[in-house]
Amino acid sequence: MLDGLRAEVLEANLELVRRGLVVATFGNASAVSRQDGLCVIKPSGVPYDRMTAADMVITDLDGKIVKGSLKPSSDLATHVALYRAFPSIGGVVHTHSRHATAWAQSRREIPCFGTTHADYFHGPIPLTEPLAHGEIESEYEANTGVAIIRRMRGLDPMDCPACLVAGHAPFCWGKSVTDAAHMAVIVEEIAAMAWMTVTINPAIRPIAEVLRDKHHFRKHGPKAYYGQS
Amino acid sequence: MLDGLRAEVLEANLELVRRGLVVATFGNASAVSRQDGLCVIKPSGVPYDRMTAADMVITDLDGKIVKGSLKPSSDLATHVALYRAFPSIGGVVHTHSRHATAWAQSRREIPCFGTTHADYFHGPIPLTEPLAHGEIESEYEANTGVAIIRRMRGLDPMDCPACLVAGHAPFCWGKSVTDAAHMAVIVEEIAAMAWMTVTINPAIRPIAEVLRDKHHFRKHGPKAYYGQS
Amino acid sequence: MLDGLRAEVLEANLELVRRGLVVATFGNASAVSRQDGLCVIKPSGVPYDRMTAADMVITDLDGKIVKGSLKPSSDLATHVALYRAFPSIGGVVHTHSRHATAWAQSRREIPCFGTTHADYFHGPIPLTEPLAHGEIESEYEANTGVAIIRRMRGLDPMDCPACLVAGHAPFCWGKSVTDAAHMAVIVEEIAAMAWMTVTINPAIRPIAEVLRDKHHFRKHGPKAYYGQS
Amino acid sequence: MLDGLRAEVLEANLELVRRGLVVATFGNASAVSRQDGLCVIKPSGVPYDRMTAADMVITDLDGKIVKGSLKPSSDLATHVALYRAFPSIGGVVHTHSRHATAWAQSRREIPCFGTTHADYFHGPIPLTEPLAHGEIESEYEANTGVAIIRRMRGLDPMDCPACLVAGHAPFCWGKSVTDAAHMAVIVEEIAAMAWMTVTINPAIRPIAEVLRDKHHFRKHGPKAYYGQS
Repeated sequence: MLDGLRAEVLEANLELVRRGLVVATFGNASAVSRQDGLCVIKPSGVPYDRMTAADMVITDLDGKIVKGSLKPSSDLATHVALYRAFPSIGGVVHTHSRHATAWAQSRREIPCFGTTHADYFHGPIPLTEPLAHGEIESEYEANTGVAIIRRMRGLDPMDCPACLVAGHAPFCWGKSVTDAAHMAVIVEEIAAMAWMTVTINPAIRPIAEVLRDKHHFRKHGPKAYYGQS
Repeated sequence: MLDGLRAEVLEANLELVRRGLVVATFGNASAVSRQDGLCVIKPSGVPYDRMTAADMVITDLDGKIVKGSLKPSSDLATHVALYRAFPSIGGVVHTHSRHATAWAQSRREIPCFGTTHADYFHGPIPLTEPLAHGEIESEYEANTGVAIIRRMRGLDPMDCPACLVAGHAPFCWGKSVTDAAHMAVIVEEIAAMAWMTVTINPAIRPIAEVLRDKHHFRKHGPKAYYGQS
Repeated sequence: MLDGLRAEVLEANLELVRRGLVVATFGNASAVSRQDGLCVIKPSGVPYDRMTAADMVITDLDGKIVKGSLKPSSDLATHVALYRAFPSIGGVVHTHSRHATAWAQSRREIPCFGTTHADYFHGPIPLTEPLAHGEIESEYEANTGVAIIRRMRGLDPMDCPACLVAGHAPFCWGKSVTDAAHMAVIVEEIAAMAWMTVTINPAIRPIAEVLRDKHHFRKHGPKAYYGQS
Repeated sequence: MLDGLRAEVLEANLELVRRGLVVATFGNASAVSRQDGLCVIKPSGVPYDRMTAADMVITDLDGKIVKGSLKPSSDLATHVALYRAFPSIGGVVHTHSRHATAWAQSRREIPCFGTTHADYFHGPIPLTEPLAHGEIESEYEANTGVAIIRRMRGLDPMDCPACLVAGHAPFCWGKSVTDAAHMAVIVEEIAAMAWMTVTINPAIRPIAEVLRDKHHFRKHGPKAYYGQS
């Protein structure tokens, strides 16, 4: 049942470890099968070096377990909230990668300081509002999804494939879980460069919109001309 | 005699090296056997690549050598002081890891800036007061333990599994020496993120207590729901 | 056709990956055959681990494809502009390496803070002016070359073998593509040191011109005495 | 002739590369045979992966070549000046390691912010005065040695085993070239921690002298009690 997708989800989780984005068991990756209305996600708190594709938990889009003997990632409710809200995405990745987490902790969105950023994001990497007390006390993980969705209002998830959760860390997404894991790498890189940028020049402003648009639409949308074909 | 524990202590010491937390011979790990009232600790200044389990020194909880031909770590007196003061801990690890040491040197506790931190600490990573002149000149290592114990007054060592010694470096602990070595990795990661956080936003404040509590008690205490039950 | 040069260009591209200067498919290296009036450049958006020497695209110095079934790097027009303007160079490398990109994003040239810098650059690592709106909207990549050439006016490309493009990243060059790739490593190292330097001492000024000249001309020009003659 | 020492000098040079302290051909290590009055030093600008023990150049303590077909390191005159001035040292290492070089570039000595530092240095890591114009223009490398020796006046080279050259980089030394290479590792580590320390707390002051002395003399001098006797 969804064996290919489970293998891809496992692989994405391992890629996060190989790339140094995950320490201990922080971090989780999931994929959605739109056809089946099912989510495949990492189990909670299992060491990466013992994890197999069969350990991936299958749930419906309300987070109810359909198959799997292990408990799913404690962040499951955030993942399925994103799948319900963003029909164009196929995978979600959450990490506590160092630099991206530092921006989330500093409670600042990451301004578009350069073309590396613009190649992937058509604007800043956004930051959620802090959750209200009641949103934390009850259904915290689902409400983390709500906070991301609220912040993404008016943005196309494909032009803005990540969001920082204030005081927490980034959630990233893409057409597939493989793309989402790649985006987690890119977000960490952009966050590192942005950190250095503001420490070199605290007064720095984002690049001009025309330069941002040029780079973004070189790679995205109908006028893209980057890459083969 | 305590062969299993000696092997675990050796392994914890080597894990610190593999994780890049130890340069030269800075750093030491120990375990306690509560049943025997004995401490097992790394020898002093022996190169890591030649160290064997049999080199681990066994002492009583006053630091008196019971077995072993090598001198124990010069920080032994700090380790046994912690074992006497905190009955719930089973292992202690001391490193001079870069980022955590920088916080100790800057003489600032590490505020709880995010959920990564709250997952492990129910509050800041505390910082000792500087030792008095007399405490340095006589029984320095034992007094380092005293300074940590003083600072930990009112805190549960399991909710606050590390303390920074001012102008020196972190001491970490856990239920076992393996857990304590893992905590040294986590403390370094939290310290790195916190450093970046304050350089991005020097005015940043700790996260709300409700968010800190939510994350901490997701993983600790009777209401924990993280990981495989 | 130009098989040796294609192999060297492939190798330079792979060296950038090995050195950690390239994440994803950011970055490209090219060489010029002055004799043939031809440029050899990396294809666009092809994963590094599948790239072969035969994938390298051959173009004339106006950027017209002469041989190769893949699309050339989208930055081709910048590369050929530099070859036309700087007759002494044989290779061009573009990366988004972390520290050098942070300086480009902070829109500050890198002052000559030390002898490591002076060994390679007879002055700051320069920064282009931002491109005008029209220059971005039409023939953007060619105009990136124009901006670099404008900024390099009066400078010898061999005494100043790199330029930062504002809000973007560095372009580096050398007598060969191998030298240009080496320069990308050096520029990243100089940028990292300069970042740390300004965060330690924000008021720091460049080194004295006499010291800069001493180090630069120890390695460059008729009075050089560094290395095996 | 001095085959053992040549092998040790080669190994020390390679250790600098393995530890990531040397990029390109920056950096050089030498040893002295006090008995023979001879210095053994790395050749200039030879790639590390092709270097053999037989490539090490032997000179007298005035820097005159005694044996070796290659040109010695261009910094030879600095090395022999240090050997003449400091009779207790047996090896000298020069690197452009990132963090230590950043301090040299920022033209600040490294204050003794913690016990890691005090374990090796009985005071700050000192910084030379900038060289005078005439000292740069003529006999620059010998005068770099003069600047270090001037700054070290009143200090015991064994209690202060490195000095930063302003606008340049560190020189380190020890009883042997192996010790000097180890010191280059330690100096880089101390420099990294000190950089982070001042960015966390710009107002931070050195540790108390009594703590500095305690740590330093735990490892050095007649009352040392660290390590296996």
